[in-house]
Amino acid sequence: MHTTEQNKAQVLVDALSYIQKFAGDMVVIKYGGSAMTNEVIKQSVLKDIAVLKSVGIKPVIVHGGGKDINSWLNKVEIKSEFKNGLRVTTKETLEVAEMVLSGKLNKGLVQHMERIGTHAVGLSGKDGNMLTVEKCLSKGEDIGYVGKITHVDTELIETLLLNGYTPIISTIGLDEKYHAYNINADDVATAIARALKASKLVFLTDIEGVLEDPSDPNTLISKINTNSAKQLFESGVIQGGMIPKLKNCIDAVQDDVKKVHILDGRMEHSLLIEIFTTSGVGTEIKK
Amino acid sequence: MHTTEQNKAQVLVDALSYIQKFAGDMVVIKYGGSAMTNEVIKQSVLKDIAVLKSVGIKPVIVHGGGKDINSWLNKVEIKSEFKNGLRVTTKETLEVAEMVLSGKLNKGLVQHMERIGTHAVGLSGKDGNMLTVEKCLSKGEDIGYVGKITHVDTELIETLLLNGYTPIISTIGLDEKYHAYNINADDVATAIARALKASKLVFLTDIEGVLEDPSDPNTLISKINTNSAKQLFESGVIQGGMIPKLKNCIDAVQDDVKKVHILDGRMEHSLLIEIFTTSGVGTEIKK
Amino acid sequence: MHTTEQNKAQVLVDALSYIQKFAGDMVVIKYGGSAMTNEVIKQSVLKDIAVLKSVGIKPVIVHGGGKDINSWLNKVEIKSEFKNGLRVTTKETLEVAEMVLSGKLNKGLVQHMERIGTHAVGLSGKDGNMLTVEKCLSKGEDIGYVGKITHVDTELIETLLLNGYTPIISTIGLDEKYHAYNINADDVATAIARALKASKLVFLTDIEGVLEDPSDPNTLISKINTNSAKQLFESGVIQGGMIPKLKNCIDAVQDDVKKVHILDGRMEHSLLIEIFTTSGVGTEIKK
Amino acid sequence: MHTTEQNKAQVLVDALSYIQKFAGDMVVIKYGGSAMTNEVIKQSVLKDIAVLKSVGIKPVIVHGGGKDINSWLNKVEIKSEFKNGLRVTTKETLEVAEMVLSGKLNKGLVQHMERIGTHAVGLSGKDGNMLTVEKCLSKGEDIGYVGKITHVDTELIETLLLNGYTPIISTIGLDEKYHAYNINADDVATAIARALKASKLVFLTDIEGVLEDPSDPNTLISKINTNSAKQLFESGVIQGGMIPKLKNCIDAVQDDVKKVHILDGRMEHSLLIEIFTTSGVGTEIKK
Amino acid sequence: MHTTEQNKAQVLVDALSYIQKFAGDMVVIKYGGSAMTNEVIKQSVLKDIAVLKSVGIKPVIVHGGGKDINSWLNKVEIKSEFKNGLRVTTKETLEVAEMVLSGKLNKGLVQHMERIGTHAVGLSGKDGNMLTVEKCLSKGEDIGYVGKITHVDTELIETLLLNGYTPIISTIGLDEKYHAYNINADDVATAIARALKASKLVFLTDIEGVLEDPSDPNTLISKINTNSAKQLFESGVIQGGMIPKLKNCIDAVQDDVKKVHILDGRMEHSLLIEIFTTSGVGTEIKK
Amino acid sequence: MHTTEQNKAQVLVDALSYIQKFAGDMVVIKYGGSAMTNEVIKQSVLKDIAVLKSVGIKPVIVHGGGKDINSWLNKVEIKSEFKNGLRVTTKETLEVAEMVLSGKLNKGLVQHMERIGTHAVGLSGKDGNMLTVEKCLSKGEDIGYVGKITHVDTELIETLLLNGYTPIISTIGLDEKYHAYNINADDVATAIARALKASKLVFLTDIEGVLEDPSDPNTLISKINTNSAKQLFESGVIQGGMIPKLKNCIDAVQDDVKKVHILDGRMEHSLLIEIFTTSGVGTEIKK
Repeated sequence: MHTTEQNKAQVLVDALSYIQKFAGDMVVIKYGGSAMTNEVIKQSVLKDIAVLKSVGIKPVIVHGGGKDINSWLNKVEIKSEFKNGLRVTTKETLEVAEMVLSGKLNKGLVQHMERIGTHAVGLSGKDGNMLTVEKCLSKGEDIGYVGKITHVDTELIETLLLNGYTPIISTIGLDEKYHAYNINADDVATAIARALKASKLVFLTDIEGVLEDPSDPNTLISKINTNSAKQLFESGVIQGGMIPKLKNCIDAVQDDVKKVHILDGRMEHSLLIEIFTTSGVGTEIKK
Repeated sequence: MHTTEQNKAQVLVDALSYIQKFAGDMVVIKYGGSAMTNEVIKQSVLKDIAVLKSVGIKPVIVHGGGKDINSWLNKVEIKSEFKNGLRVTTKETLEVAEMVLSGKLNKGLVQHMERIGTHAVGLSGKDGNMLTVEKCLSKGEDIGYVGKITHVDTELIETLLLNGYTPIISTIGLDEKYHAYNINADDVATAIARALKASKLVFLTDIEGVLEDPSDPNTLISKINTNSAKQLFESGVIQGGMIPKLKNCIDAVQDDVKKVHILDGRMEHSLLIEIFTTSGVGTEIKK
Repeated sequence: MHTTEQNKAQVLVDALSYIQKFAGDMVVIKYGGSAMTNEVIKQSVLKDIAVLKSVGIKPVIVHGGGKDINSWLNKVEIKSEFKNGLRVTTKETLEVAEMVLSGKLNKGLVQHMERIGTHAVGLSGKDGNMLTVEKCLSKGEDIGYVGKITHVDTELIETLLLNGYTPIISTIGLDEKYHAYNINADDVATAIARALKASKLVFLTDIEGVLEDPSDPNTLISKINTNSAKQLFESGVIQGGMIPKLKNCIDAVQDDVKKVHILDGRMEHSLLIEIFTTSGVGTEIKK
Repeated sequence: MHTTEQNKAQVLVDALSYIQKFAGDMVVIKYGGSAMTNEVIKQSVLKDIAVLKSVGIKPVIVHGGGKDINSWLNKVEIKSEFKNGLRVTTKETLEVAEMVLSGKLNKGLVQHMERIGTHAVGLSGKDGNMLTVEKCLSKGEDIGYVGKITHVDTELIETLLLNGYTPIISTIGLDEKYHAYNINADDVATAIARALKASKLVFLTDIEGVLEDPSDPNTLISKINTNSAKQLFESGVIQGGMIPKLKNCIDAVQDDVKKVHILDGRMEHSLLIEIFTTSGVGTEIKK
Repeated sequence: MHTTEQNKAQVLVDALSYIQKFAGDMVVIKYGGSAMTNEVIKQSVLKDIAVLKSVGIKPVIVHGGGKDINSWLNKVEIKSEFKNGLRVTTKETLEVAEMVLSGKLNKGLVQHMERIGTHAVGLSGKDGNMLTVEKCLSKGEDIGYVGKITHVDTELIETLLLNGYTPIISTIGLDEKYHAYNINADDVATAIARALKASKLVFLTDIEGVLEDPSDPNTLISKINTNSAKQLFESGVIQGGMIPKLKNCIDAVQDDVKKVHILDGRMEHSLLIEIFTTSGVGTEIKK
Repeated sequence: MHTTEQNKAQVLVDALSYIQKFAGDMVVIKYGGSAMTNEVIKQSVLKDIAVLKSVGIKPVIVHGGGKDINSWLNKVEIKSEFKNGLRVTTKETLEVAEMVLSGKLNKGLVQHMERIGTHAVGLSGKDGNMLTVEKCLSKGEDIGYVGKITHVDTELIETLLLNGYTPIISTIGLDEKYHAYNINADDVATAIARALKASKLVFLTDIEGVLEDPSDPNTLISKINTNSAKQLFESGVIQGGMIPKLKNCIDAVQDDVKKVHILDGRMEHSLLIEIFTTSGVGTEIKK
């Protein structure tokens, strides 16, 4: 009897219409949180991305790395000044951040993808002058080398995708005088998705998605459009870190990105389930 | 809980290494028997082929159609002469055969593939002068318009594959004076696989594979190489219709086709199970 | 003396300006009537098309096959219901029509073209989902599987032309649920010419062209534009089968097709004479 | 009645097999003699070449210009020294020769071809460093700037052919120090045909072809291979200017040029008759 | 010590930003005057152009040749009629002009460029039907074969540039009936620059540039835009031959050519100095 | 007077023949030592490389980083075990080395090149699985994650060069189980130059070149071939760190690399002087 194998084959057949639908599409994935720190989840997410690549989708990965940066700042005993509750990024901080982001984490992700059999290339926003930034103030105050994206040059990403490589991008950019800056990873993913006119932008987060009541996972909002998202802002439902994230989502879908997904990165295979099944997980934002 | 969906996602992940391994490979599939006449099996096989296409494999389908030809010969009351137990293919027989093969069955398969979402093109060996034949005698006797392939021009097939179309091929060829002939479908599949230097040649049949004792399915030979296949011939194990089929297999693997598979086309998804799992089904022939 | 040969050479030289003018142009040819049933005319027409191809023109052939379909319906004793004088196309009728069109006639034309030395590919509107149709009613009544074209996907035709193949197309299309329908051949030729933005659309018919007095061949209208064509409709000069044909012509020239020709397919080489000499034959319709 | 037009169409149809056979082939034509000085013949030859181009053949024209050079040397009263009966090519002679060849005749031919509707580009062996020469002595004596070809760089010719231009080449080359030299036109045509591995090399001459008895046009040798050509040399049949011409022919066919033709350029359309009919004219040399 | 070599290297480094800025740009150079007749200057200018080519700029050279034409008209004793002080260009005059321009000077420049190591192709406006003209009257009077450009077909130039060849163009064009005409070289350079949408158009002249007081080189106007140029016309500062030249400049910069330069061709390396240093020489015209 | 500018222009003209000679060539540059740590030299070297790129040469940069790695190992207080005088590369050591090499130095070089106007992409041997290694023992003893190259996949480098990017490569590779290793930078440069079949391999070092007497810079050997290099080994002239470097040189020139240069990276513009002048600096190794 081959029942088990036939069931498995049926799963592939069931995925067919999704594979056909998304073939050739670019999907930008903001990778971070537990998906980055929990080794089991990490394996699961990266394999999911490899599956996307293997069926003709073109994934672009943007990663952060806050926890590792903090742990290395501690290790080299860099003390930080704070303004408005935000750490000021000095030259020394930035140097450590870049080493952790572009040296350790970025190339570590490349190594994982290559092990899975997917050719990857680790880039930062410096490469090919991909991310141009200007200094980003916090409530008018200088918080150091923190950048806001003013331009994305997608040529290098597109060259790599065309030649079958999966770009993995760390969040360092250059200003017009070619000084380096750290950038918020959600902002980088959003800016790249918009510049590429990607089909999808996916945020892998440590929450279930957009919740009506942040304390109750059962209040997950499965689908939302830009109008109702704006109403949620006005009614004060959206709070804290979800505010900038959702604003990014709205910007993206108003600018040629077809759908944005906020997924629970803590759940194994949430990425494949979202893209290849009718069981949407997390929150989907459309125009 | 998303256990079910996670299990499905895991199936896709498990298929990853096979998808990566076979990406870009050409696979020639001889399609016939129950896989052609049983509507449930037919759906299953064509979806399997669509899955292969969707993950980057390049399938080429060759089909026969004996039963339908017989039923239409009856319908139009064409009586047949027989020589050595073989029906003589007269002009009238050939006309019906071509209408059934190239008109009804071939375009019917195209229609099925298009319904599943895979762009297909129905060809016969006449198109682009793909199959050149010479008259094939049976024990020295003329049995009419039955052809033996002398040349395969793969240019049209390769043009279509390159542009994303799945070729579906009926078994009519032309001789050097451009007269039409019917050809054995196993021979067509083998000749095309050899000319394309395809990675795999798959025969979908109505038996379990090569059996040591044809009356006992439990004596299936899972893997065999050309040397041991020749021994089976000498020891008289191979009998009847399996003789020319296995000879085709041996010719193919000696001529740049990496593997030939004789699969049980009556089993749902035997094609996907063979290619995407470790559970080989049927018989695999290698050099 | 080489007088004869020099005269022949002069003919080639005289054709030069026409060859240069039309090089690279797409010409859609509706092939039917005597040109299809009279073997001498058939040879002449197909050679004309081969000449067009050999001097850099890109011909696309659309063929009907009413007479053969009728004769095969008789052969298999399919009786037909009629509505408004039109035969209802049942599943059984359609099955025979498709076998005759796509199996017998289409591949027969391919065989002829290959014999002449021109690589051809026989397609129906199913291949590559080329022709999408919806059910076509006759005075509000369902007459079965008769389709009206709603969309032409020209990608397959263009791929074949680019690679040097001459497409020969039978008149079967699919609706949005992938059911097959028969389509009027004039409509198919017109729809394909418009979708391709072909330079010319040529109807090979069994009449001299558009006649002011249908009973008098001497009243042939050599050239006509859309305005004067509309006046002919209003004045009642256009009658019977010429009505839909001329409407197709007007639609075509208003939609990027430069010229439409209604030629007498019964006259040998009418196609070459029309395209390569100043002696226009038949009726030319321009915007 | 359209008999005349149908006869013309039949001529095109009769040419079909030749057009198909030679499509894409390169043909190098040495153009000179009466074909260059008689205005009627000139028109005929250039139109023949335009016809070749229009049906997919790639012509390359090499021209001489002895008569015009002489007349211009007289006009500017340049007196010439002679050695072994050959004019010594001084700097002044060469200057006039180049002006006549590359300025007057070459661009005049371009003008003619453009008038006929064929895009042409006039080159000399200087352009793109196409023809490299060394000084050519006559019986050991220096006769000035007369060059012998040591290398042909076909890249420019091939670039132009690929882009649809017909190259017309005058017989000036450069030595390794980039001094200019005049070259024998037969030698240039032969060297270019060999370097291009052209299908055909055609000499348009003022004789009927190779004659067994030079005084009797009825002794024309229609076909000859390299062996029998060598015998003709030995037996002393070949005389005078035919000696180097036939040696060039033999060299060419032994070096990948399929056929060489010595045609009577005084006969209208001899080029088309040779290529597009069974009536060979002149002498054909094969390996 | 390597001081000298290091200084040289520093020059290359100083040129870097200019090289990067102009890489891939088309620059049309009107070459004439002393730059053409003085052998030292000629060497200098052509090497400058070779340098431009070697660093990725695409130069297109247009040359005149008045002095040589006059000297050859004298040599062959062609007497000229004059109207409004202009020589009437008869057929005989034109024949000599074309031989000198397209045969002697044009191919002479090609020879120079090849010697320097830059692949060049010598063209006239006849080649590829590049320059279409109509008869140009002088104050309403016919002055013979003097043409005014009505159309530039840039395809041949672009094909050559794309394949790495530097086009050198003489000033002969064809009218719609394919008669040849001589054309003013400044007009040819301007028309080609406009048709190519070149980045720069450079006139190498025998003056310092635009002077406020033509008798005083110290009154050189370094930069001027179209508005102030028009004022100069109105105020009568612009006189004589500078009038049509400056009008050409204004036309060019208003039609997608970014900058026009009037350089002193008598100064060695004025071309490189203008393009690769901050020391502008001559007059620069911008929109 | 424009004397100075004319002298500068002359430098460009003098470089012309070198630029033409090396256009399109790949040059692999091992960048390290003072060229990396002295800010003035660093600027000079990177600008030299930018000049190479701007004139059509394709540079590939391989860099080490020993000093910075040591300083960061100290900073995070990683103590090292030594075997045979070599530091053992533990997981912790490797982590710091990779952060310094791929994060700090590599992306720092990219930033510099982008500032100069040259698009660069920072890679390690992990990217695109470029460098495959196996564990490298020291006299049979395990010294940790130190790798020896077994395979170079040049596809990613070639893709980037073809698209105009300059690859900058850090010395981390993966073994067949996808574990990371540090690799000697000279070995990486040599292996990449050989795999690319680069025209030149250049080592920027902190010595004058190969010296007959290492203590006397006046004994510099300017040119050497593989035979005489082997004699130097035998005679004991080559000592210390020069031994493996010169062995690399010999391997490279025997394997399709045309020339290898050992240059004094401490001298400003030694790279440009070597490539663009006759004043060779350092030692040149040829086959």
